[in-house]
Amino acid sequence: MAYKENYPSKLLSEAVDAISSLPGVGRRSALRLALHLLKQPQENVHHFTSAISHLRDDVRYCRECMMISDEDICAICSDRTRDHRTICVVESVRDVMSIENTGQYRGVYHVLGGIISPINGVGPSDIRIRELVSRVADLMSPEALFESDAREAEVILALSGDVEGETTSFYIYRQIASYGVKVSSLARGLGFGDDLEYADELTLGRSIVNRQIFKP
Amino acid sequence: MAYKENYPSKLLSEAVDAISSLPGVGRRSALRLALHLLKQPQENVHHFTSAISHLRDDVRYCRECMMISDEDICAICSDRTRDHRTICVVESVRDVMSIENTGQYRGVYHVLGGIISPINGVGPSDIRIRELVSRVADLMSPEALFESDAREAEVILALSGDVEGETTSFYIYRQIASYGVKVSSLARGLGFGDDLEYADELTLGRSIVNRQIFKP
Repeated sequence: MAYKENYPSKLLSEAVDAISSLPGVGRRSALRLALHLLKQPQENVHHFTSAISHLRDDVRYCRECMMISDEDICAICSDRTRDHRTICVVESVRDVMSIENTGQYRGVYHVLGGIISPINGVGPSDIRIRELVSRVADLMSPEALFESDAREAEVILALSGDVEGETTSFYIYRQIASYGVKVSSLARGLGFGDDLEYADELTLGRSIVNRQIFKP
Repeated sequence: MAYKENYPSKLLSEAVDAISSLPGVGRRSALRLALHLLKQPQENVHHFTSAISHLRDDVRYCRECMMISDEDICAICSDRTRDHRTICVVESVRDVMSIENTGQYRGVYHVLGGIISPINGVGPSDIRIRELVSRVADLMSPEALFESDAREAEVILALSGDVEGETTSFYIYRQIASYGVKVSSLARGLGFGDDLEYADELTLGRSIVNRQIFKP
């Protein structure tokens, strides 16, 4: 049942236009949200809009890993207890948050800020590959190797498993392999608790090929 | 799978707080929306927030029917081709939009701005019943009756069918019945295309009691 676009007020219709520009918000939900905001005390609505403006206007990114941060260097990069010779390469800020939430990773990150996608007009120079290569070069420099007692450095390519993710991983691999850094990627296979019956063939196939020693 | 609340930036966490205060938006969706806004050009985000601020700060309500309006008197109340002796009483702005979208109603409206609800602390004086009574009194004044050739006036109670709606309807009825105005309420019954099998007993029962002459 579609709503005909017959708004009683220009202000309302402009607010609905703005809200429905958000991903996953249709015009009907946008109208519901606009009317909700209209019923709120004025200071709540100002708080709402200023929180969003502040985020967009004042946000900063870590100089090292390009993660969102309130400081020049983010909390992860400035944590000396973390392993700074392991860099996990991700597409977005959200990926960092997801991996941090697992509590399983103690290295640092590199946020590309996108993925190579010819269809969407995103080339290698549009995402932060150059900065990654320079970080790898630093890690493998004679000074860094001396300081770390020649401890191995590793780049984990934690990109999505689709064509664009694979393309980006491959491109990055070619850029950094010559530095002698170890390059790994995320394990792929059935999820924990997944039923064989419902797994797609590609995932199940890879799960068999990459099977692991059973450790009860 | 719950997100642990571990935001890399205070600005981000404040924006997520603000966005997740909207009804039906969880913290996970709020994070997705905040990161989306972060990727938009700054002027788009300013346009977004200012459309919402404008709506809340500059919105006006029709002096007659309390509908949202850009003018002192809304487009419906200022339309002389509409029947100003038929007033449809609704809870909210959205109800007016829904009824207008049917294209079946040519009278005017009265937006209560709420419904009597002792549980939520909303009493008769918190919604615009007094203003409705005064409009009815005007409609039934000797001058208005003379001007309209004593044409009948009608108040349609288009409130929801739950206890609060029924209570409000009954309260309004008692306030305006003495003016001799005709009072009606929305027809209730099975929806068009509804299957008897799936109708609730109350609705089906009322549908039988209020059955109508078959007009093929």
